[in-house]
Amino acid sequence: MKKHIYFDHNATTPVSTKVLSRLHEGVALWGNPSSIHWAGQQTKTLLRVARQNVATALGVSPLEIIFTNGGSESNNTVIKSLFQQFKNSETRNEYITSTVEHPSVLGAFRYLETQGAVVHFLNVDLQGNIDLAHYKKVLSEKTVLVCVMAANNETGVLFPIEEMVKLAHDVGAKFHSDCVQIFGKLPLDLKKMGVDFASFSAHKFYSLKGAGVLYSKKGSEILPLIHGGGQERHRRGGTENTLGIFSLGLMAEEISEVSKKALAVEALRNHLEKRILAEISEVTVTHSGAKRLPNTSSLVLSDVDGETLLMSLDVKGFAVSTGAACSSGSPEPSPGLLAVGLTREQAQSSMRVSLGWESTLEQVDEFVDTLNSVVEHLRDLNPNYKKSKMKQVLASQLKEKR
Amino acid sequence: MKKHIYFDHNATTPVSTKVLSRLHEGVALWGNPSSIHWAGQQTKTLLRVARQNVATALGVSPLEIIFTNGGSESNNTVIKSLFQQFKNSETRNEYITSTVEHPSVLGAFRYLETQGAVVHFLNVDLQGNIDLAHYKKVLSEKTVLVCVMAANNETGVLFPIEEMVKLAHDVGAKFHSDCVQIFGKLPLDLKKMGVDFASFSAHKFYSLKGAGVLYSKKGSEILPLIHGGGQERHRRGGTENTLGIFSLGLMAEEISEVSKKALAVEALRNHLEKRILAEISEVTVTHSGAKRLPNTSSLVLSDVDGETLLMSLDVKGFAVSTGAACSSGSPEPSPGLLAVGLTREQAQSSMRVSLGWESTLEQVDEFVDTLNSVVEHLRDLNPNYKKSKMKQVLASQLKEKR
Repeated sequence: MKKHIYFDHNATTPVSTKVLSRLHEGVALWGNPSSIHWAGQQTKTLLRVARQNVATALGVSPLEIIFTNGGSESNNTVIKSLFQQFKNSETRNEYITSTVEHPSVLGAFRYLETQGAVVHFLNVDLQGNIDLAHYKKVLSEKTVLVCVMAANNETGVLFPIEEMVKLAHDVGAKFHSDCVQIFGKLPLDLKKMGVDFASFSAHKFYSLKGAGVLYSKKGSEILPLIHGGGQERHRRGGTENTLGIFSLGLMAEEISEVSKKALAVEALRNHLEKRILAEISEVTVTHSGAKRLPNTSSLVLSDVDGETLLMSLDVKGFAVSTGAACSSGSPEPSPGLLAVGLTREQAQSSMRVSLGWESTLEQVDEFVDTLNSVVEHLRDLNPNYKKSKMKQVLASQLKEKR
Repeated sequence: MKKHIYFDHNATTPVSTKVLSRLHEGVALWGNPSSIHWAGQQTKTLLRVARQNVATALGVSPLEIIFTNGGSESNNTVIKSLFQQFKNSETRNEYITSTVEHPSVLGAFRYLETQGAVVHFLNVDLQGNIDLAHYKKVLSEKTVLVCVMAANNETGVLFPIEEMVKLAHDVGAKFHSDCVQIFGKLPLDLKKMGVDFASFSAHKFYSLKGAGVLYSKKGSEILPLIHGGGQERHRRGGTENTLGIFSLGLMAEEISEVSKKALAVEALRNHLEKRILAEISEVTVTHSGAKRLPNTSSLVLSDVDGETLLMSLDVKGFAVSTGAACSSGSPEPSPGLLAVGLTREQAQSSMRVSLGWESTLEQVDEFVDTLNSVVEHLRDLNPNYKKSKMKQVLASQLKEKR
């Protein structure tokens, strides 16, 4: 059997053994939760239990939990709902977000711009700092909504949400945070953060795909993105993905594991970075000095094409990701990496390693060994690298001759 | 073990044994289909196979299939996308739908009205005929979109989509049909129907919840309701519910069974109606003379409260639905039943029986027997019924005396 080592947990996570072992329970409850007979009521109970579990995990009330089909839907719902509520306001009509948000947030805001909204984009620098001076400058009583992610998917950098929320509330603006990447990776205290809205995704936390959460703080109105039956207290129409929600509810029970797992995963990540920096030349870690997710390492390996690297590692059974322009995706390198100041060349040489709860020291060591040989091989094939290496050799020979 | 007989297949269907037996295959493919490594590629293959299966089942091209989270999302996407595309048009700015559409369609159109759209609502009469005279009157070169369901969820009545599409296309309007209820119940030929868009839901066809389809005919532009990554060719953002789509793909392979199953289910439904009409007094079948779905029977049982009836049957293990105002749902009786001309009193005494592929003659007979005794019991408890019965008895006694 082929070896498969998965280091791409920021893209998605494997389904946990807990969820797998109890899948038959969830799939047996197939009634429509809106039906008032036995078939519906048992599924309604499933939803109630999952909602309570998720609310407990997030430290909020079950009434503040709206089940959606995922993080992208949650993000779109908040942004477009607030726009609907304020689009005719003459006094409050501006939005603030960052340049490194998830495509669902950036896409929604670009759409809002076509509808006449004023959107301010905050930059993030190479140290991982979001431009708070710019934030304070553009934040005003005109601001409807501030939307900044808790943790970045590509570099793992954390943003000072609590501080930014206070400033937003001072001017009467609402605050939404895309918490998809931080959920399950670091302990999270929504009440302390103070956000009005937050997004979560089941499949980034060892659960099934097609289920997510929109946290909507009591007193914050949400207009539905999907009109329909009265589901989710008229905040989100459509029959619920009950099996996906069931799986998320099971994992929500494991939230107390997060702080312990975070330490273990961070130790592995630090070991990985330490070995790579010691053993492979011309490598930098993006945002290495910033507060980061414990599992994420965003690397730039000079003179290595990210897509070729990814595919070479894939052949050997390792799954990582890259911000390089890819045959499967965009013709451009990752906008998120360019936005934090990486050059196109650097983004084209980027690799993201994101570890998970089931990652081991043996896997990390095996990965670094393989990476070492793959990078050496790819650089040997790279004429630019050979040329610059030749120059170095010549320079040192000249030095010796002197 | 308690007896459970499920006759509410228009609300949702049990998960088929085929899907159950192959669930482990689908859940084993947990990679993100947007990832280009092994974990992503195997899930991408899952999506490709499912898309091909669904396209084949519908007789269309895989590129015309957009996976969504369900029928409500598909309906909302079409209606709001067309509105976005035409809202600034001075010449084409009207919409046509029917009064008996699903809440996701009616909700989306009511929302459009708040945004300035002109929406015409076509009535359906007690015979199940949609008002084609009104349709021809309001249909014009101003019409952006006509949106009429193929089959009604409450009464099962079928609408003349093919004829209506031709008229719409004659004036350059697009046509969307909510095909959620007809899918898997009657053979369907989208090309022959000629629609530009159509909605489908996995969980109404023995598959998992949280997956649906939006058919978008080649040449018809769809703007995303959910902005995000480039999924579904930029027509629907968000990581796909791969397990739900897998299950739908499996059932799509069974589409050739539909015509045979339809005949069997129709025979059961006719037997059910025949027995009820023969054995229970003062019962009418809504739209009984119209072309209907083979599995659906919408009944009005005079002097019986629908909710009490449903709960009495539920206690005995039978699952049906009612258009009566329910403790769980709306305080009003079904708008769809009122829209076809039923009085509030009749809607309050309505019961919907919807059979499925696993329904049997024994179940139907057991159901009618139980219904008979339950109705008798409830009517005996109903003072109005007793009064009117008393009057009848008195009247016949008076007759006899004469």
